[in-house]
Amino acid sequence: MTRDSGRRRERRGRGGIKQTPWRHYQVPYKPVEILSADQIEAIHDSSLKVLEEIGMDFLDEESLGILKEAGAEVSAGSQRVRFPRGLVLENVAKAPSQFTLHARNPEHSLIVGGNNINFGSVASAPNVSDLDRGRRPGNFEDYCNLVRLCQSLNIVQFISGYPVEPADLPPATRHLDAHYAAITLTDKLWHPYSLGKQRITDAIDMVCIGRGIDREELKRTPSLFSIVNSSSPLRLDGPMLQGLMEMARHGQAVVLTPFTLSGAMSPATIAGALVLQNAEALAGLAFIQIVAPGAPCMYGGFTSNVDMKTGAPAFGTPEYVRAALAGGQLARRYRIPYRSSNACAANAVDAQAAYESEMSIWGAVMGHANWMLHGAGWMEGGLVASFEKMILDAELLQMMGEFLQPLIVDEDSLALDAIREVGPGGHFFGSAHTLARYEHAFYAPILSDWRNFETWREAGALTADKRANALWKQLLAEFEPPPIDPAIDEALKDFIERRKREGGALAA
Amino acid sequence: MTRDSGRRRERRGRGGIKQTPWRHYQVPYKPVEILSADQIEAIHDSSLKVLEEIGMDFLDEESLGILKEAGAEVSAGSQRVRFPRGLVLENVAKAPSQFTLHARNPEHSLIVGGNNINFGSVASAPNVSDLDRGRRPGNFEDYCNLVRLCQSLNIVQFISGYPVEPADLPPATRHLDAHYAAITLTDKLWHPYSLGKQRITDAIDMVCIGRGIDREELKRTPSLFSIVNSSSPLRLDGPMLQGLMEMARHGQAVVLTPFTLSGAMSPATIAGALVLQNAEALAGLAFIQIVAPGAPCMYGGFTSNVDMKTGAPAFGTPEYVRAALAGGQLARRYRIPYRSSNACAANAVDAQAAYESEMSIWGAVMGHANWMLHGAGWMEGGLVASFEKMILDAELLQMMGEFLQPLIVDEDSLALDAIREVGPGGHFFGSAHTLARYEHAFYAPILSDWRNFETWREAGALTADKRANALWKQLLAEFEPPPIDPAIDEALKDFIERRKREGGALAA
Repeated sequence: MTRDSGRRRERRGRGGIKQTPWRHYQVPYKPVEILSADQIEAIHDSSLKVLEEIGMDFLDEESLGILKEAGAEVSAGSQRVRFPRGLVLENVAKAPSQFTLHARNPEHSLIVGGNNINFGSVASAPNVSDLDRGRRPGNFEDYCNLVRLCQSLNIVQFISGYPVEPADLPPATRHLDAHYAAITLTDKLWHPYSLGKQRITDAIDMVCIGRGIDREELKRTPSLFSIVNSSSPLRLDGPMLQGLMEMARHGQAVVLTPFTLSGAMSPATIAGALVLQNAEALAGLAFIQIVAPGAPCMYGGFTSNVDMKTGAPAFGTPEYVRAALAGGQLARRYRIPYRSSNACAANAVDAQAAYESEMSIWGAVMGHANWMLHGAGWMEGGLVASFEKMILDAELLQMMGEFLQPLIVDEDSLALDAIREVGPGGHFFGSAHTLARYEHAFYAPILSDWRNFETWREAGALTADKRANALWKQLLAEFEPPPIDPAIDEALKDFIERRKREGGALAA
Repeated sequence: MTRDSGRRRERRGRGGIKQTPWRHYQVPYKPVEILSADQIEAIHDSSLKVLEEIGMDFLDEESLGILKEAGAEVSAGSQRVRFPRGLVLENVAKAPSQFTLHARNPEHSLIVGGNNINFGSVASAPNVSDLDRGRRPGNFEDYCNLVRLCQSLNIVQFISGYPVEPADLPPATRHLDAHYAAITLTDKLWHPYSLGKQRITDAIDMVCIGRGIDREELKRTPSLFSIVNSSSPLRLDGPMLQGLMEMARHGQAVVLTPFTLSGAMSPATIAGALVLQNAEALAGLAFIQIVAPGAPCMYGGFTSNVDMKTGAPAFGTPEYVRAALAGGQLARRYRIPYRSSNACAANAVDAQAAYESEMSIWGAVMGHANWMLHGAGWMEGGLVASFEKMILDAELLQMMGEFLQPLIVDEDSLALDAIREVGPGGHFFGSAHTLARYEHAFYAPILSDWRNFETWREAGALTADKRANALWKQLLAEFEPPPIDPAIDEALKDFIERRKREGGALAA
């Protein structure tokens, strides 16, 4: 296939929906600082005390051995690890403050760090929903369709994980099919799960085949990132740790994200939840750097709160936004890229879904997050991936992406001549200055309906969720997969066939 | 009535909906700066050039005389006024950078300026809507019910104008009934329209009666604010100017807000629209200060953009947010309090309504707006006041208000003892630290539903708009008007009766 025909396919693949172009985003504004310098230091100091005095459980023998060797205090017969603060800080300092993740299509590679912000898809939902078929357990067909939407939507810059769990596939080989679909239905970055060593090893082999490179080159030009959640409070489980080590040893990025829901898995104060988040993040990040000094990693912030009456998790709350901003300050204190999310707790693609997501997105953007997980499609606190929510979020993220573009102030844009030409009481609709900007003057939405009420009502009075329903169907109908070298596709299929014969990832 | 019984009535009047308390809000975060210092000066300089070289039309003979007397260039037989930049800047510098507006209930007085932010209701919609009765022309019954909701909702700190136009009342005396309802159904700040001198004079008389003070005391302790929109580009009409002068001479606050929709009434670039906004605002503010040096006033920013394909106005867009932030920088350059809005273009209380409003609110808050007009209930670019949208916005504003509260970081909130007590793998639900904070640890929403999907579905699967419908009905059912001295009420009624006999405001 020639380069030109590939381009044509990509254009067609993007369909008839006018969206913003693929681009890289930086936040040109200073981050919102919610913590004073003293408050940052108080949280920093308290979290180091937690690691020194209370310690953290590492539920993996190999990890315990490595930590003991490195100078941590590991009691015999216990999984409790206490960290001298010097050990933590020396190792955390080895983490790179910026790195690039390399996609199969080099145009889709992303820079992680600095004021770069990258938007990812929903990940890891057990259920899937749309307005036609309702809410149902995850399955491979919906998985593939959500992955196709991620490819079609320029604002979805990476696949955050399985958009929905393809629960109809056998657990031991599910990752092989899921990764194959991610590699062939998209040419963007994707995510393997740190569920034991084998799944990561398979992902590393597959991403190497997909890019046509070897492990050494993959180490120099990493492609993979994997979320490692600590089991808050103060635990890291065995499969996560095994996956973490395999990722780090191959130079792939680990995103260490404590799951510190305030009032449940962490104290019922934002400050206390941040202490625990910071302690767990630092312990995990230090461990990554002990295993593989210089390996790319991110500081993940996911602190929110529960409804104290019911224990239900809440997202996009005022507490969530404050924690997102504070998390950015803490990550920057250690000069480590920062991961945040677009989270909401809503059960429907209604006003609540939109306002909780907006709160989360503003917290991430003004907190200078570099990596926004769950950017498009996340609902019900992560229990559902929604087709309509993915379109809604694409609109929210596109709007934010446009807000991040530099504001041009020059002689032409100041428009004194146009103001003079139109004069008091005139109109700018027909002025030459306006006509010259007719096509591209302003952001063109994909979901917003700005028609007047009468026209909107006559056209069916469709609310935003129903308009989103039509949009994802149109995108799927127009989808064409990105080009792939047939030899690479064949090699991927051969690999999967062999690994399935071998039984896949038999042990978790 | 004793003070205690008044308190009891107020508590009952707030109903069974648990909302955040009445309080004053400050933005503790630095404003987001979208313009560099050079860009601010470029816009500043261009707008002064507009006033020097192009000029602005003042459609009022008295105003033209005053401006000529003050040193502006007014051509004979023309309404065009050209302003030497010194005249503009010297007068704008006389405006106070902070002042207090005094409500009938002193607890509901508000500080305007600095980092104070105050949230107002919807204003000036010609239509009203709710889910039961649909969309219909404005009328006095709906006007009164919306005013009641403003009193009931603590987060609605002032009445921005007529929430909806009571179009079933005669135009010449409508303001008398509307003001009487605002004074007696609420004890918060309210707004008279600058539609000629007489309506303002009547409002001044009525607010004096309501507060039991004379005009001199009202001048020292202002109560009223009125929006004066320039008819962009570069025009101020006669009734607005007459109202402006009457307000300023009595020391009441004028909010000078150009209506600079980019691509229609202003250039199709944000920079150009800001030049026009700034020129018109400066001309109006300078005129206020020429009429009454030191009179309270605000710099109003309302720049948004149109859909270039249809001319339909859009709000809460990326361009809107950038203009809101830039407007704050310009207002601060002149040390004048800043007015922004919670605007949206949506036709339904759906996801679009929520995300456009969130964008507007974030722009206002991070732009350090002091006065948020249209904070609760605004829809369809101002064509509709919606009962459900008022509840939705109350939730958005409450969340923002909570986000603005200082984050406490001290030994107690850092919670090291709780973390030690719970330890790795434990749970904070039952810890003493959590139990002590059970009631007030986190923001409690009025509209958000955090129940799990199954529970939510069994309870009727109500989306946010339908939940809002139930909430405003509950608030209205539980409404009790704030206490008022019967003698004051009688005096207000006498005043209205006399003024109606006199014909009200016969000329516009």
